[in-house]
Amino acid sequence: MTTAAPELRASVARLRARLDALAEVGATTAGGCARLALTDADRDGRDLVVGWMRDLGTRVDVDRLGNVVATWPPDRDDPAVMTGSHIDTVANGGRYDGCLGVLAGLEVLETLIAAGAEPVHPLAVAFFTDEEGSRFAPDMLGSLAFAGGIPVEAALDVVAIDGATVGAELARIGYAGAAPCPARPPRAFVELHIEQGPVLEQHGVTIGAVTGVQGISWSEVTVTGQSNHAGTTPIALRHDAGYAVAALTTALRVYVDDVGPPLVGTVGRVELTPNLVNVVPGRAVCTVDLRHTDESALDAAVAWLATTCADLAEREGVTIEVSTLARFAPVVFAPEVVDLVESTARDRGYSVMRMPSGAGHDAQMLGRVSPAGMVFVPSARGVSHNPAEHTDDADLEAGLDVLLRVLCALAEVPGGEQG
Amino acid sequence: MTTAAPELRASVARLRARLDALAEVGATTAGGCARLALTDADRDGRDLVVGWMRDLGTRVDVDRLGNVVATWPPDRDDPAVMTGSHIDTVANGGRYDGCLGVLAGLEVLETLIAAGAEPVHPLAVAFFTDEEGSRFAPDMLGSLAFAGGIPVEAALDVVAIDGATVGAELARIGYAGAAPCPARPPRAFVELHIEQGPVLEQHGVTIGAVTGVQGISWSEVTVTGQSNHAGTTPIALRHDAGYAVAALTTALRVYVDDVGPPLVGTVGRVELTPNLVNVVPGRAVCTVDLRHTDESALDAAVAWLATTCADLAEREGVTIEVSTLARFAPVVFAPEVVDLVESTARDRGYSVMRMPSGAGHDAQMLGRVSPAGMVFVPSARGVSHNPAEHTDDADLEAGLDVLLRVLCALAEVPGGEQG
Repeated sequence: MTTAAPELRASVARLRARLDALAEVGATTAGGCARLALTDADRDGRDLVVGWMRDLGTRVDVDRLGNVVATWPPDRDDPAVMTGSHIDTVANGGRYDGCLGVLAGLEVLETLIAAGAEPVHPLAVAFFTDEEGSRFAPDMLGSLAFAGGIPVEAALDVVAIDGATVGAELARIGYAGAAPCPARPPRAFVELHIEQGPVLEQHGVTIGAVTGVQGISWSEVTVTGQSNHAGTTPIALRHDAGYAVAALTTALRVYVDDVGPPLVGTVGRVELTPNLVNVVPGRAVCTVDLRHTDESALDAAVAWLATTCADLAEREGVTIEVSTLARFAPVVFAPEVVDLVESTARDRGYSVMRMPSGAGHDAQMLGRVSPAGMVFVPSARGVSHNPAEHTDDADLEAGLDVLLRVLCALAEVPGGEQG
Repeated sequence: MTTAAPELRASVARLRARLDALAEVGATTAGGCARLALTDADRDGRDLVVGWMRDLGTRVDVDRLGNVVATWPPDRDDPAVMTGSHIDTVANGGRYDGCLGVLAGLEVLETLIAAGAEPVHPLAVAFFTDEEGSRFAPDMLGSLAFAGGIPVEAALDVVAIDGATVGAELARIGYAGAAPCPARPPRAFVELHIEQGPVLEQHGVTIGAVTGVQGISWSEVTVTGQSNHAGTTPIALRHDAGYAVAALTTALRVYVDDVGPPLVGTVGRVELTPNLVNVVPGRAVCTVDLRHTDESALDAAVAWLATTCADLAEREGVTIEVSTLARFAPVVFAPEVVDLVESTARDRGYSVMRMPSGAGHDAQMLGRVSPAGMVFVPSARGVSHNPAEHTDDADLEAGLDVLLRVLCALAEVPGGEQG
């Protein structure tokens, strides 16, 4: 691989301008963005980005699932070194999640084009359909299909929370393309993304060389006890479903602390019935989100959950049912890509650390068919999926620079050293 | 006081028939009752009961707040020995709560009238407006005003959860009466009610001689933490509002167990925000219901709540606000009435125990102005505010019999011994 030219310099101001312009589409009052997948707002966002892609002189291909790929040079058809992410958002998200990876990719292209670079391998910038999964489950649907992980027909039939189907909505917004899906695998895939967590900021580190994605287990725990009057039922005679969920939540904290990082466990959703101040909850449903980079450690956590629920049921005289909502094995990124991200960041003078991703990303789907990796930049206070999502210009610049150099190396930009 | 005649025998079959007929009004599909205060269903229930009152030849007075009092003999105007309760229900309640006390009172009257009894003091059967408080807060509104605890004008201005006012709804359903409210205090007040808890059943005891009503503290606890991604936020960096509520719930259990009965504590309502499987809750609201028969012990529990929340806030890096939703001091019933209930039950051969009421009842409002007490009968499995609410005929018969004898004693039914 050729080392890219230190003289090449991508413009963080231009990147910031595009981030801001895209954030205007589906802007919410709190400064956030609402571009749920395949809505009118998503279409408007797509149109804006596709316009920028065309302005750069790339070839824009839209596949059957609405995944959009801009290739440069436009006449090249051999496997590209690809970057990208997504531009759909959660219901009230921020302006960085996904968009940064796509627009940083465009900025890299614009920089290389302006410099007259001639890469050995073509470069491509993609944005994938429905990464967030907020409107259509599962998340990462577009990249999953792009990588052949789900038949495109099945993906087109997915029904939204509002009853629409992916296929019908793609046709409606004009993004039911003709390019094949699954696509021919790219030569490599590298995604720049905000961390969406506080680890980089806490460590005072600028660049995360992402080693993989944590495995995930989502369970729904349903406790059936007995609803009773809060005043007339002595504690010893209760079968309090809400207490059982609370006891599970505190036991989870103890377990996660005992096992230690990178295990995380979260009770994010709790629903009590009847949920009244003066009634002992007769029924309670909660979710348990468990994540670990190691599959056997995640299995152990899932087994702990089952045992703990059984013990609690016995102790409280309630019944507890645990059902699996989702289970994904950990993803390990290509070592050569992780190494390249880490060494490039170090060579460019940025502090860097290896770290797993706690969230799912399109790169993990591309990793099924291509060498893949990711570059993380800090999220202020770890906040994401929130209008307050923020990354400083200095961190954007570092991430953009690392992405540029990594793509140049992978695409073998000749004379890159000269700029 | 004169002991009432053992030969007098009230009819549980007639009581059961009235309970069943009243349960048909506002019947729900699950076998429950929906007669929220001052709705059309409540009016229909009132009309039915008032019809029975008139059929017995009583004088029916409706006061300005819709409280209904049937007096016998009808021409008597001196302070009556009163019984009664309420006939409004929660949104999906049972057929016993409240109705039992009213219809058992009618059955006592019918028995005495049929026997040609001539009490020294008149007898009265009342049903009070809006005991449940499900539509208009506070609960026990009618008896509160009847006892002078709230100005009737203020009670008439109370706004329902659906926007209507007590005054307008009373006029609409034809129960804005002319009798004065507050009323002249009765000579004594005794209310028969289902326990609404499991204590009698668990002890295998038929009659509860109610010593008073537990004091109540309702608090709302609002935890503000930080909403974060469940995958990307290490445990040590979290400010998990949901965890704080869970930790409070489990700490409450330990505290209540340490203090012991009659303290009870309940977290009945929990609302997490955003309440999603993969997001650390940034905000959580829960309620804490604390009850004790002793005011100082209840004060101590309320103080414990404040301290525990402060400690939790410190430990978890969250802010916790505790606000008071309701606070009622314990009520102590008149010792002579409690003694009379207990001795009457024992004399009649029923097992009896003294016990506090965990729930609020109209009798506690009447107790502000008159010697008052209550008779409890068992609730199957302690279930109440539920279509499955049930009390066996044998227990109804015992409660009815005790009520009859207690009222005879208080009203000094002459020749009652002879029947």
